[in-house]
Amino acid sequence: MERTLIEETGAGREVRLCGWIHRLRVLKNAAFIVLRDLSGTVQIVASPEQVAGLKLEDVIEVTGLVRAEPRAAGGREVEWRSGRILNRAVSILPFTSASTLENVPTEVQLQHRPLSLRTEAVGEIFRVQAAILELFRAHLRADRFTEIVTSKLVATGTEGGSNLFEVKYFERVAYLAQSPQFYKEHGVAGLERVFETGHVYRAEPHATSRHLTEYCSLDLELGFVESAEPVMELERRLLTAMFTELNRRFGESIRRRSGAFLPELTKAPIWEFPECVERLRLAGITSPEADLTPEGERMLCTIAERELGVPAVFVVGFPLSKRPFYVHPRGENGAAQSFDLLFRGLEITTGGQRLHTREALEASLRSRGLAPGPFEGHLRMFELGMPPHGGLAIGLERLTAQVLGLANVREATLYPRDRVHLAP
Amino acid sequence: MERTLIEETGAGREVRLCGWIHRLRVLKNAAFIVLRDLSGTVQIVASPEQVAGLKLEDVIEVTGLVRAEPRAAGGREVEWRSGRILNRAVSILPFTSASTLENVPTEVQLQHRPLSLRTEAVGEIFRVQAAILELFRAHLRADRFTEIVTSKLVATGTEGGSNLFEVKYFERVAYLAQSPQFYKEHGVAGLERVFETGHVYRAEPHATSRHLTEYCSLDLELGFVESAEPVMELERRLLTAMFTELNRRFGESIRRRSGAFLPELTKAPIWEFPECVERLRLAGITSPEADLTPEGERMLCTIAERELGVPAVFVVGFPLSKRPFYVHPRGENGAAQSFDLLFRGLEITTGGQRLHTREALEASLRSRGLAPGPFEGHLRMFELGMPPHGGLAIGLERLTAQVLGLANVREATLYPRDRVHLAP
Repeated sequence: MERTLIEETGAGREVRLCGWIHRLRVLKNAAFIVLRDLSGTVQIVASPEQVAGLKLEDVIEVTGLVRAEPRAAGGREVEWRSGRILNRAVSILPFTSASTLENVPTEVQLQHRPLSLRTEAVGEIFRVQAAILELFRAHLRADRFTEIVTSKLVATGTEGGSNLFEVKYFERVAYLAQSPQFYKEHGVAGLERVFETGHVYRAEPHATSRHLTEYCSLDLELGFVESAEPVMELERRLLTAMFTELNRRFGESIRRRSGAFLPELTKAPIWEFPECVERLRLAGITSPEADLTPEGERMLCTIAERELGVPAVFVVGFPLSKRPFYVHPRGENGAAQSFDLLFRGLEITTGGQRLHTREALEASLRSRGLAPGPFEGHLRMFELGMPPHGGLAIGLERLTAQVLGLANVREATLYPRDRVHLAP
Repeated sequence: MERTLIEETGAGREVRLCGWIHRLRVLKNAAFIVLRDLSGTVQIVASPEQVAGLKLEDVIEVTGLVRAEPRAAGGREVEWRSGRILNRAVSILPFTSASTLENVPTEVQLQHRPLSLRTEAVGEIFRVQAAILELFRAHLRADRFTEIVTSKLVATGTEGGSNLFEVKYFERVAYLAQSPQFYKEHGVAGLERVFETGHVYRAEPHATSRHLTEYCSLDLELGFVESAEPVMELERRLLTAMFTELNRRFGESIRRRSGAFLPELTKAPIWEFPECVERLRLAGITSPEADLTPEGERMLCTIAERELGVPAVFVVGFPLSKRPFYVHPRGENGAAQSFDLLFRGLEITTGGQRLHTREALEASLRSRGLAPGPFEGHLRMFELGMPPHGGLAIGLERLTAQVLGLANVREATLYPRDRVHLAP
């Protein structure tokens, strides 16, 4: 008999179901199993003898007759005819797939990843993450972007050499890419609009709730952009479209977990960096010379929420000197043609316009004390017909965490990597 | 004025176009530019003075009036009003975006990747590749698979330690993942059906037309599978659906480049390994003990094409001893519950059923002379409720190459990595 998915189990039919024992209750004269598969759960009624030896999280196959039962969840239950254990779980588990996980430390969830994924609470995080990937790509494809796949093994870093992981590459040294920045710029010169969803690496020794050494970057880059504004405008539309669909699919969970439905980012303000520093000063928060602190990022979102009803801010006009060498200046006053997007208290995007001539890139490298030589392979690509361009990158794990109101980016990472974690 | 994409340029309108100079012809009294953007090309008519100093591949902005012109491609041309150079290309280029590239070595194309991407011949390879990624994911999502993102930095290899790239990971050694095999199996125990599209790494010192040290693996794994057959059946449906859509979008190119439209893989035969060896022997080809040679793979596809009209073969019943430790045996005679899919002469998939109990995995490791100890972090995941399962992996670059009839997998890789290539 073909396997039937639980969701497709209709009353009056004989079915073969496969899944995990989600709940198990054995009374004197009857036993009740709640069976779980990828499509849902259903109650199975058996005799105590039939379920002898079964326990929570065992993987079983059950054939039985479906009958209408108004008192059961879903309005039907299955009468056990025969069953088979496909694989056993161990007897002692730190939690089960029916647990809420509220009191289960993230580390214990991680060490039992298959089991934590089977819970509704954690499984949903990664279903939301999969939807974010799907919607990011779909929106960009509809806007004529082409997906690219670029190498993560590189000969030089994009930012000039810090925080790079070294790879022993035959007789040479390679590095893990910190960003697909160079490649997506080359992609613009070829295909005009490109995106990539892939891993990037930062040898970040600090353990914070926001940093990982390996994360998935949602990258896009497009040609014929001559300031940061069109890139911000694209991100507003992109995220608003994605958030609308996420609200439609997961709205109740998002509201329950994060406190609110996802906002329309079209309403997010654009604030100048000095204005942000001043607003923070008035709120009693000191900012470092050319950046915002995590506390500052949270406060700016709180202010935007209070003033405009949207917990998000585009910050523009950062000092150019603290930005990577490929960032385009905005006028002559030392500001960058770039932006950060803060969302629900955390920076989730950096983007902006890039330099597009070889001469400007060389000058920028020199002004930062970097020799152009090691970047020659990159610089010569700018001589082949490079349009003015810009782009952005969104951290997938950060975005997932902010969408669901998770306190730590590790909760939105199947297998987080940091100084401590290299397994599982 | 807003920029208009070339494809959306309608007669009678004043437009601002941005793009690359694809062709340039200067006569005594008139000049003709074919301008190219991501949407297409259009002819611009100007005076020789207006185009003075312009050259092929320069990036320009042109405003002008669109008028109907039956003799021009697309039935319209643009009368130059004003123009602006956005960025210049260098004067001497090894080829241009109008080149067919037939006589341009792959290495030269690679060294000028932005320019080669701008040609129709190479640009299309990567548009097809993007479509393969899109269709693979869309088909699986519709079949209730969840996309996962798993770490490529691991503490141990999936196959027991050979061909691994070492990474200096703070005070420790990490390795680049050869496959998401372990993680997708864990994913099955959590989400039942998972897929991933991401990079994998093999420190493969040999330079062949089929091998890269970094490639993109289209991976899937699903629960409640108790032989290789359902996995093959899934791949038949998956690839047939993908090929149908690729034929619809790119059919003429595929036929022109590879010699035929993509076939219906539902017709591909399933042949036993010993039967393949015997067929090859009759064709004068000797096979090694437990594998097929590249020549053998090509011949088997030729035979299948001749006998059944489809240049593809599922090969089953490989000797278990030469397969990785996680492969499930088929009965007691030393054969594996696994398969390879040969397509147009090249292996593009390995898949099958996996072992799903800790005991069987430990025994398999030991039988291969491997100690279970280093795999403890993986093995204990099998105690948390692991269904019988199977899956497969398709090499994206190989599939792209076979779809388009490319001779070398490097042609289907934006930035190929091998012993020689670490840049660009």
